Amino acid sequence: MSDEFYMDLALNEAWKYQILTYPNPAVGCVICDKFGKILSIKAHKKAGYLHAEPMAILFALFNLNDEILNKFLNEYNVCFTQSFKTLTELNEADLDAKFCYEFILSNHGNLLNDASAYVTLEPCSHHGKTPACAILIKQLGFKRVIISVCDENKIASGGAKILKEAGIDVKIGVLKEHTKKLMLPFKTWLNGNFIFYKLAMSANGVITGGIISNELSRTHMHKLRGVIDLLVIGGNTVRVDRPVLDARLANAKAPDVAIYSTKRDFDTDIALFSVKNRNVEILDNLEVINKPLVMIEGGEQMLKKIALGEILNVKWVLIYQSSEFKNADNIKLDVRLKPLYEGRLGDDRYGWYEVC
Amino acid sequence: MSDEFYMDLALNEAWKYQILTYPNPAVGCVICDKFGKILSIKAHKKAGYLHAEPMAILFALFNLNDEILNKFLNEYNVCFTQSFKTLTELNEADLDAKFCYEFILSNHGNLLNDASAYVTLEPCSHHGKTPACAILIKQLGFKRVIISVCDENKIASGGAKILKEAGIDVKIGVLKEHTKKLMLPFKTWLNGNFIFYKLAMSANGVITGGIISNELSRTHMHKLRGVIDLLVIGGNTVRVDRPVLDARLANAKAPDVAIYSTKRDFDTDIALFSVKNRNVEILDNLEVINKPLVMIEGGEQMLKKIALGEILNVKWVLIYQSSEFKNADNIKLDVRLKPLYEGRLGDDRYGWYEVC
Ligand SMILES: [Zn+2]
Ligand SMILES: [Zn+2]
Repeated sequence: MSDEFYMDLALNEAWKYQILTYPNPAVGCVICDKFGKILSIKAHKKAGYLHAEPMAILFALFNLNDEILNKFLNEYNVCFTQSFKTLTELNEADLDAKFCYEFILSNHGNLLNDASAYVTLEPCSHHGKTPACAILIKQLGFKRVIISVCDENKIASGGAKILKEAGIDVKIGVLKEHTKKLMLPFKTWLNGNFIFYKLAMSANGVITGGIISNELSRTHMHKLRGVIDLLVIGGNTVRVDRPVLDARLANAKAPDVAIYSTKRDFDTDIALFSVKNRNVEILDNLEVINKPLVMIEGGEQMLKKIALGEILNVKWVLIYQSSEFKNADNIKLDVRLKPLYEGRLGDDRYGWYEVC
Repeated sequence: MSDEFYMDLALNEAWKYQILTYPNPAVGCVICDKFGKILSIKAHKKAGYLHAEPMAILFALFNLNDEILNKFLNEYNVCFTQSFKTLTELNEADLDAKFCYEFILSNHGNLLNDASAYVTLEPCSHHGKTPACAILIKQLGFKRVIISVCDENKIASGGAKILKEAGIDVKIGVLKEHTKKLMLPFKTWLNGNFIFYKLAMSANGVITGGIISNELSRTHMHKLRGVIDLLVIGGNTVRVDRPVLDARLANAKAPDVAIYSTKRDFDTDIALFSVKNRNVEILDNLEVINKPLVMIEGGEQMLKKIALGEILNVKWVLIYQSSEFKNADNIKLDVRLKPLYEGRLGDDRYGWYEVC
């Protein structure tokens, strides 16, 4: 198969964690052995968690050799008093980066000699708490690294340069237009605000009448609430729905809330005002918002204003859509969206769309 | 990666041609070389076209050796006075099965020795105009064949038996529940009627107000019209929309039409009545329909009757959904669907859904 095929697998994996990696970019990585067999498809999942490359390298080694997996489980569980037993548990865990790097370097047994790595973003070259990904790839003897987009700020000092100087065959630019879309939130919040609008609707466009999305969708949404800097909500929605707006399904911190309203007459018994460690402000002008990552949860009126460009510069819409038709009125407005990614959460679909 | 990973690739490819293969089942095939590298992901596309397995084998050989591709193009173009130049053209073409089989047997050069094939359906064992797929796989020296579901009628004489007796490692049952869903239309039309309902709507559930779907979606729909036995449409839709109901975008034969109406007062100037080589009948009772493959294109009232079980036994709904919100009323009914497959046709999405 073509380089595009593998890069597409890496991209799809990265999209699953779009925004959730804030303030880091979403990054995906696919590793193939020297014969071209896929060993792992992984992504960076959350700030603080492993980068996509060491995650993919670790799981490639587990794939190649059960004993490496068993050794990892034993040593990790002893070292951190954990009780991980399965690949699935490891896959979801916030693994200690330093431990993983050292484990990889001590146990790779040259199994990844002449392997290939497909990464959506140029591997990092900075030494932080752990070695840079480019150094790790170099030390494992990879033969080929295919990069979709390079970090523009580091042309002289970046990971690609380190890899090339080590004699690795580096190819840059595969599916780069797609990766630029993937990276747009990151690029935007680095130098301003990335604002997206969240909408949950039935298959036939109904957004009212109680809970629309399934628990998987709501958990995903709570994960987003757990990473954003600010949640903006319309005043009418607060008055009518009386929401909590916390992130309990993801065991995460409830976001700060800005209520968009010209009136300040809110019943303070509404649950959202009583959530601990949260700021709530009431704004009659959203232009003062200057947080890097902002999610809007509004109703039809708010979406109309956004679609018309009347309030805020909303780049993307996140839509959760159930597989159920409801016997009720739909949300009505004229707007064309460009699909960027669609995935499934059980019987619900969710997708990221660009406002055209 | 797991056997499930490769079978899922085969299944997704097969779903792209769901119904279009009528009266054959939709079948997908993935071929990996002896090292586990993916060489091809192909499907059976249309009755008369190559089966999934020889299609995948042919493209695996092209992938392995450019000279085999060039030789194929030269010989095929001479033999059939074609002017195919690219893999893409070959991929879309109705290739001569006998020629392809003989070409594969003369030119494989043992390149697929010890390869693996993932097939959603047990390879065929009957000698028709061309050798059976099971024989072909055997002759090429495959090491492993992974089959999702077996043909229940051929346990004693089927392809799996041929493969096992040739010493090939045969594994059966990978993702079989998913493949059973894929095969449901085929199983149904073999012994009765498979009836599906087609709906085109905007992102927010609007089905009225002119053309909703893009040209890719409409072409897909015309391909379906080209293979079905009967198109059922509501009388009101005929009176209001005055449709042609042909298959011109797919250069295919227009389907026979049954208009569901108690009144027979149709203006015979309506375009659908003037399409050549088409039967049109007006029915006040749809229970008399006994064609194996039937598509319904109706409006809201017809879908409501179907959802309530008042008319016909509709198994699946096919939905084309655009990425556009329209400022108009939605289709309104209470029905829960179970998504089976969703794909993209440009900015439109389409999906097959089970009626719950
Ligand atoms: Zn890194
Ligand atoms: Zn066959």
